[in-house]
Amino acid sequence: MRGMMNTKLEFASDYMKGAHPDIIRRLTETNLLATSGYGSDAFTASAKEKIKKACQCGTAEVEFLMGGTQTNAVMIDAFLRPYQGVVAAVSGHISAHEAGAIEAGGHKVLTVEHVDGKITADNLRLYLENFYRDENHDHMVMPGMVYLSQPTEYGTLYSLQELTDIRGICDQYRIPLYVDGARLAYALATPSNDVTLPDLARLCTAFYIGGTKCGALFGEAVVIPDPDKIPHLFTLIKQHGALLAKGRMLGLQFEELFTDDLYLKIGACAVKEADRIRNALSERGFTLCFDSPTNQIFAVMENQKLEEFGKHVSYSFWEKTDETHTVIRLATDWAANEEETDALIDLLDQFKE
Amino acid sequence: MRGMMNTKLEFASDYMKGAHPDIIRRLTETNLLATSGYGSDAFTASAKEKIKKACQCGTAEVEFLMGGTQTNAVMIDAFLRPYQGVVAAVSGHISAHEAGAIEAGGHKVLTVEHVDGKITADNLRLYLENFYRDENHDHMVMPGMVYLSQPTEYGTLYSLQELTDIRGICDQYRIPLYVDGARLAYALATPSNDVTLPDLARLCTAFYIGGTKCGALFGEAVVIPDPDKIPHLFTLIKQHGALLAKGRMLGLQFEELFTDDLYLKIGACAVKEADRIRNALSERGFTLCFDSPTNQIFAVMENQKLEEFGKHVSYSFWEKTDETHTVIRLATDWAANEEETDALIDLLDQFKE
Amino acid sequence: MRGMMNTKLEFASDYMKGAHPDIIRRLTETNLLATSGYGSDAFTASAKEKIKKACQCGTAEVEFLMGGTQTNAVMIDAFLRPYQGVVAAVSGHISAHEAGAIEAGGHKVLTVEHVDGKITADNLRLYLENFYRDENHDHMVMPGMVYLSQPTEYGTLYSLQELTDIRGICDQYRIPLYVDGARLAYALATPSNDVTLPDLARLCTAFYIGGTKCGALFGEAVVIPDPDKIPHLFTLIKQHGALLAKGRMLGLQFEELFTDDLYLKIGACAVKEADRIRNALSERGFTLCFDSPTNQIFAVMENQKLEEFGKHVSYSFWEKTDETHTVIRLATDWAANEEETDALIDLLDQFKE
Amino acid sequence: MRGMMNTKLEFASDYMKGAHPDIIRRLTETNLLATSGYGSDAFTASAKEKIKKACQCGTAEVEFLMGGTQTNAVMIDAFLRPYQGVVAAVSGHISAHEAGAIEAGGHKVLTVEHVDGKITADNLRLYLENFYRDENHDHMVMPGMVYLSQPTEYGTLYSLQELTDIRGICDQYRIPLYVDGARLAYALATPSNDVTLPDLARLCTAFYIGGTKCGALFGEAVVIPDPDKIPHLFTLIKQHGALLAKGRMLGLQFEELFTDDLYLKIGACAVKEADRIRNALSERGFTLCFDSPTNQIFAVMENQKLEEFGKHVSYSFWEKTDETHTVIRLATDWAANEEETDALIDLLDQFKE
Repeated sequence: MRGMMNTKLEFASDYMKGAHPDIIRRLTETNLLATSGYGSDAFTASAKEKIKKACQCGTAEVEFLMGGTQTNAVMIDAFLRPYQGVVAAVSGHISAHEAGAIEAGGHKVLTVEHVDGKITADNLRLYLENFYRDENHDHMVMPGMVYLSQPTEYGTLYSLQELTDIRGICDQYRIPLYVDGARLAYALATPSNDVTLPDLARLCTAFYIGGTKCGALFGEAVVIPDPDKIPHLFTLIKQHGALLAKGRMLGLQFEELFTDDLYLKIGACAVKEADRIRNALSERGFTLCFDSPTNQIFAVMENQKLEEFGKHVSYSFWEKTDETHTVIRLATDWAANEEETDALIDLLDQFKE
Repeated sequence: MRGMMNTKLEFASDYMKGAHPDIIRRLTETNLLATSGYGSDAFTASAKEKIKKACQCGTAEVEFLMGGTQTNAVMIDAFLRPYQGVVAAVSGHISAHEAGAIEAGGHKVLTVEHVDGKITADNLRLYLENFYRDENHDHMVMPGMVYLSQPTEYGTLYSLQELTDIRGICDQYRIPLYVDGARLAYALATPSNDVTLPDLARLCTAFYIGGTKCGALFGEAVVIPDPDKIPHLFTLIKQHGALLAKGRMLGLQFEELFTDDLYLKIGACAVKEADRIRNALSERGFTLCFDSPTNQIFAVMENQKLEEFGKHVSYSFWEKTDETHTVIRLATDWAANEEETDALIDLLDQFKE
Repeated sequence: MRGMMNTKLEFASDYMKGAHPDIIRRLTETNLLATSGYGSDAFTASAKEKIKKACQCGTAEVEFLMGGTQTNAVMIDAFLRPYQGVVAAVSGHISAHEAGAIEAGGHKVLTVEHVDGKITADNLRLYLENFYRDENHDHMVMPGMVYLSQPTEYGTLYSLQELTDIRGICDQYRIPLYVDGARLAYALATPSNDVTLPDLARLCTAFYIGGTKCGALFGEAVVIPDPDKIPHLFTLIKQHGALLAKGRMLGLQFEELFTDDLYLKIGACAVKEADRIRNALSERGFTLCFDSPTNQIFAVMENQKLEEFGKHVSYSFWEKTDETHTVIRLATDWAANEEETDALIDLLDQFKE
Repeated sequence: MRGMMNTKLEFASDYMKGAHPDIIRRLTETNLLATSGYGSDAFTASAKEKIKKACQCGTAEVEFLMGGTQTNAVMIDAFLRPYQGVVAAVSGHISAHEAGAIEAGGHKVLTVEHVDGKITADNLRLYLENFYRDENHDHMVMPGMVYLSQPTEYGTLYSLQELTDIRGICDQYRIPLYVDGARLAYALATPSNDVTLPDLARLCTAFYIGGTKCGALFGEAVVIPDPDKIPHLFTLIKQHGALLAKGRMLGLQFEELFTDDLYLKIGACAVKEADRIRNALSERGFTLCFDSPTNQIFAVMENQKLEEFGKHVSYSFWEKTDETHTVIRLATDWAANEEETDALIDLLDQFKE
């Protein structure tokens, strides 16, 4: 293992590296300090305060969990009654890529069509109207909350207006709105984004601020602006096996991420390099898919070229477009740098369409 | 937060500090390396090989999870069919202290009486005999596996003979034996222990090697000597939200713990200091509870003395013995040192019985 | 099959015969009538009104389910949040005899010691006090409701004072009280009973009026005095597979049972014959167990005598008292008659202690 | 309630009436007989033998449950491991109309497109191929069984060839095939049907013979040709609250249905009258939907006409075709008669398209 070399350019995902150096430094400095467990330590307390401040929401409860699937499972379990399901886009992470974690908790994922990875207010309204119009709706799973991701699984962003409209529909049907922010730092760092942390705190019943893909070793911070809506979340976290004994590992990381606005800045280089890659792809004749302005880049590549490309670059398979073409995903991260982008762009010259 | 001082002697638990310095060093060195996710990295592969070697079990499957409650929930879910429950001591961790994680997976914990935290072969046999003797047993939850902890929640140890006997009964009833090794390093480092890792690999259907309480930041390594017994464990881990995106964090820690037999040695100082504390308590007239030879110390203290003691030492409440006395637990850990023990012993002079 | 003869005296249980003749007659008369499904028919509506009247509780919601285990599973699922469990006597039906139905719904059964099958107010208070006194209680399953049976599994009865005390404790801890009335008709027909249907409606958050063991072919009627406490119960019943397509079969049976106070009278002959059997047993030197005044009789019999006795009488094994003696249960039912009791008493003469 | 009159023609469903008169007669005759509980009686034993004979499958296990949603939930729970889901048509009963019963058991329903309510072998093959081709398939719910209905929810029938092809694919992927026969009597009575009970026993891993909609008061008979595939089903049935205390009520009904081939004949009048209605609709210019040859009739009606029609006939709403038209379902049943059909046809003259 020691001495292993990376011979490929690594653009497969945004969870391939460790953590922001400030976090590692802090872990090292505090390593032998003894603190109490399960998030009752001072690092965690401080991190919670900083997040509440960043969200301009002093009343919020903040809890730290270890990963995205886990966080979604806990929060959906916390919100729903047994006869309710969660409304999500067909492309939502919970719909297909969490190995049945939501169903294991007893809940159906009720899917609506997506547009570039997004639920539209119109589709949501239609879904809910049709549900309640059906005479037999009490023989069916009741829509009990709405789940969406910011940015979406397709790298796209909800605008403030779109989120506000969706919240309006949720209010009308009295159901909570929950936002999965696994890659939230990249949304916040995108120039065209107009949804801030305080906006999320105002519009969501709960949302999570992703750490794993945004500069932490691991960890997600759930924010619940009105904690009365979810009593005893701590016990539910424990029940899901999601309570870290050395909870300070989470507190410490998020304290660092919310010191000097690090979280707001950490995605900037990723988005900048992603933009450069998108431009380079366009200029070389590749078709870009979805209108993704964040750290994920989706492009179509001819299959034989892709085979060769894959020898030099680690990427993610997304889907087939036809027998001879494939959509691939490239992702940049908080540690993106110009040199690696340059190397990728140089390589793209060999694969021009 | 910065500048926080510990003014107490810290003996409340064995998960209060960070990780063994070798782990921190390794995390730092490899931090910006890009590796593939979900345990498909080379650190993880190497750690698995080392653990298989330490267990003298080349056929084993090894998987890494993040915490003990999580690991128990996943493994019990993996072993049991819906109509089966898990047999555990009343004092077993899964019986009361996991917030219903096992029941949330649909399974009943079937409790048997314990002796110093241990299931005895006789109690187990009796339980199983009575179950199948009951004419109505198919209206009841069928015992589908046996769960025990080494060391137990009372710090006691199963001998090789005891484990062998229990396995014999499991074989007779054709049910798996699963061992929770949250504090296994402390068992392995105890002079009177005669159960080795290869013994566990030979006697258990599965067991886990605890990292969180034994020198890692977090993490538990499940060992399944015959992996055919649990197909598709990976997907089940994912479903439980227990699959770490940056899986290498787990691999790297266990690779370090199984380099140069670190895991076999790491508990030694804890047990040595625990012995010194036990002796000091005895000499000062305190009653020790349970015959714990590992890193946990259980002692009775008069309530008013305890109130004063608690101002200087962080400990865990265990249970009341009567209106005026309490059993407390002190725990040492892999970073235990003579100075702290000395300070504790000095303090004990003031609280002599 | 046709021409099968019963050669034994049948005292094994109270669910061995069909239904009260009035029910069968009504089923026959209405058989080819077409009505709408799932309990939306007029029989069901009428039955609900009659039960609300009998309970002097016009605001109640009444729902009909098919069996006791099913009803308990649905109602406990309806009351509890995922982090909560149900407090029951060790001897409660849900504790051991429902094949894990409660755990399959994700909930732990939290057991307290019983006295003759009953939870005492003192035991309950102690349990709840100890729970909240434990510093780690939010790592444990929270007591979320109380379950008890009237009459109990041991045939004993809660007095009005006992139930009132228990409800007081439930109020103090703000948790619902749910009463399993699988054999409620026999309680209501027992001379010493002082708990009426209106009392139950006043003291319980929900309870069910047993039909299966009390003169119906099958069916249990759940009464929820304040339906706001359990929204969308209909959908939950459907989800549990507990919604009968031809719901009128339940409505019709309960309409008949609540016509001319049939349910209040139907248990009288059972209790009268049970009393005769208890007296006969006492007079012949048998030890009676528990202070059961209802339709269940518990007596100790020497094992060799029992083997012979069992050739003539169908009974239920209850438990062993020692190596040579067994507690058996005899049960009378709504169709009990003097002739069968006389035959049993005659037989007992041969088995005098 | 007494004296209630049906003023409408009743074609809303096939579960609106009681039971076949032979069943009612038998219930009455045997009412006061005492038998042992939970299906251990002689009626049940006899019914099981008769069903095994009708299926030409002497090795089969037969179990009786109370309703369709319940049966599906139990059987799917019996077949699947936690990481697996059930493949069903989007239009399958379990996909939307069981209030989340399958998800409550922890399992995802994996939907494939349907053609007239049927899964095609091609769609199934494609679904499975794509699943295993996806590199990330072990992050997704594994297809663990196939569910289909005969007849389907659209009243259509699988041919013997279609079922054989589907079974072939199931064999290739080593997953069980389960058939929901809620309305099986109507399939068996349809002239164009070529799938017999022995065929089902040969091709299915399990299937159920519907009673509720086919002449019983309630009840479904599960047939498992190779019982080794589902051990301890009895306990699972109990756990689901699906074990009837007076199990003989189920045994007796199915014994009657399988005496003198009653079950094979009972659907004939329903199909005959349904054919007459279909012809009458066609002749009057109504569009029929789906190629349903069984007891369900689907037709398009203009909304204003439908409002008037609904005053005279009880029907089921199926779906909207456009703003001005609706698909309705009419259903005939085992008690269908010419007079009611004639009355309906007379009425249709007023609503000609």
